[in-house]
Amino acid sequence: MTIKLYELAGADDDRRFSPYCWRIRYALQHKGLDFETIACRFTDKHVIAFSGQDKVPVLADGDEVVSDSWAIACHLERAYPDRPSLFGGPAGLALSRFYVDWADTVLHGTLIRLLASDIHAHLHEKDKDYFRETRERRFGTTLEAFSSDQARTLQELKRILTPLRRTLQGQPYLGGDAPLYADYTVMGAFMWARCVSQVPLLESADPVTLWRSRLLDLLDEEALRLRAYG
Amino acid sequence: MTIKLYELAGADDDRRFSPYCWRIRYALQHKGLDFETIACRFTDKHVIAFSGQDKVPVLADGDEVVSDSWAIACHLERAYPDRPSLFGGPAGLALSRFYVDWADTVLHGTLIRLLASDIHAHLHEKDKDYFRETRERRFGTTLEAFSSDQARTLQELKRILTPLRRTLQGQPYLGGDAPLYADYTVMGAFMWARCVSQVPLLESADPVTLWRSRLLDLLDEEALRLRAYG
Repeated sequence: MTIKLYELAGADDDRRFSPYCWRIRYALQHKGLDFETIACRFTDKHVIAFSGQDKVPVLADGDEVVSDSWAIACHLERAYPDRPSLFGGPAGLALSRFYVDWADTVLHGTLIRLLASDIHAHLHEKDKDYFRETRERRFGTTLEAFSSDQARTLQELKRILTPLRRTLQGQPYLGGDAPLYADYTVMGAFMWARCVSQVPLLESADPVTLWRSRLLDLLDEEALRLRAYG
Repeated sequence: MTIKLYELAGADDDRRFSPYCWRIRYALQHKGLDFETIACRFTDKHVIAFSGQDKVPVLADGDEVVSDSWAIACHLERAYPDRPSLFGGPAGLALSRFYVDWADTVLHGTLIRLLASDIHAHLHEKDKDYFRETRERRFGTTLEAFSSDQARTLQELKRILTPLRRTLQGQPYLGGDAPLYADYTVMGAFMWARCVSQVPLLESADPVTLWRSRLLDLLDEEALRLRAYG
């Protein structure tokens, strides 16, 4: 039975912009597993209700249904131990967790300021009110006000990427000579941006840019056919 | 031949406050290696001139002289492969690098605002002018002005620790069930603070505080005899 990945989509079925879903796309590809994807919108809660919760990514792998990107990555590592490892062993698994927490808070927390309006613009009509209401409540202001100071956010992004930049000056991937789940975790954020925004996030000579290019080069044909900018 | 670790000291020989030296103390202890330490001051450049550079930590291990804490940790891992691993394998080694860069920039960059005046107060007389001049040039202001807004720095510290806090909510150490070099890298910063400052950095129920306590409990008797607060 083919693995099924339920992914967030915009107005177009092939606008797959969730950073968490990108982590799993990369992870499935890393493991060399065949999978099909199902486009979901924010308000398609019924489509993934079988998972017992309401957020994508959801992975249906035979009888197992797993939600939450970290849990899915751990499931793939456990269920397919003979495929290339996502973590490089127990220490690598434990050490990967900080990358998740750093991306989820520091990196996403900055990028969302750049992307909130763009995400809204790319959503399916049926999602637009839901997104605006939940996010404006969370941000305490309108999407447009929240995303207004682009220049400042780009400066902030450059600043918060300092430790990542330093690491990638010394090695091609966070995982060393080859990428690991830590790379996909951070790259998810850049894929998120790439799917909805035309703003160049990084300078071309930035080690983070070069690393991003290396990870883009790893995408399979199906992923490359999805809608994105840049 | 006993391993020798050259460490930064304050006015008192047993005030060993360098965060980078603490990383190596923990690493040596983790490896179960006997070592002796030599107290150096900032202006004792001649004492470590044999290392071909002017910064501690310097490790003299038989014929090998290694400087830079990361290089020393890699040396220990390579030279003592049968002792407990600091990285848990090649993936763990690569994944540890971001912790170094995060601690060096984000964590130290915030803590130094809290500690600059306290460090100066604890220095040997012969180091005071050197420290004041080099740091005031780097900070672009006086040590006292730089360290003045303690309440704000403590708020900032709480904020930048968000990803670390999240990770440590889910696992006892960054390395998982037992500490690895990544833990010692971050802990170095808290040891730095502990050696010179009496200001409580963290709330008692913070997962980071609990992790810090676990790492303090691992210190050997000699390390516990060194001068520190808290």
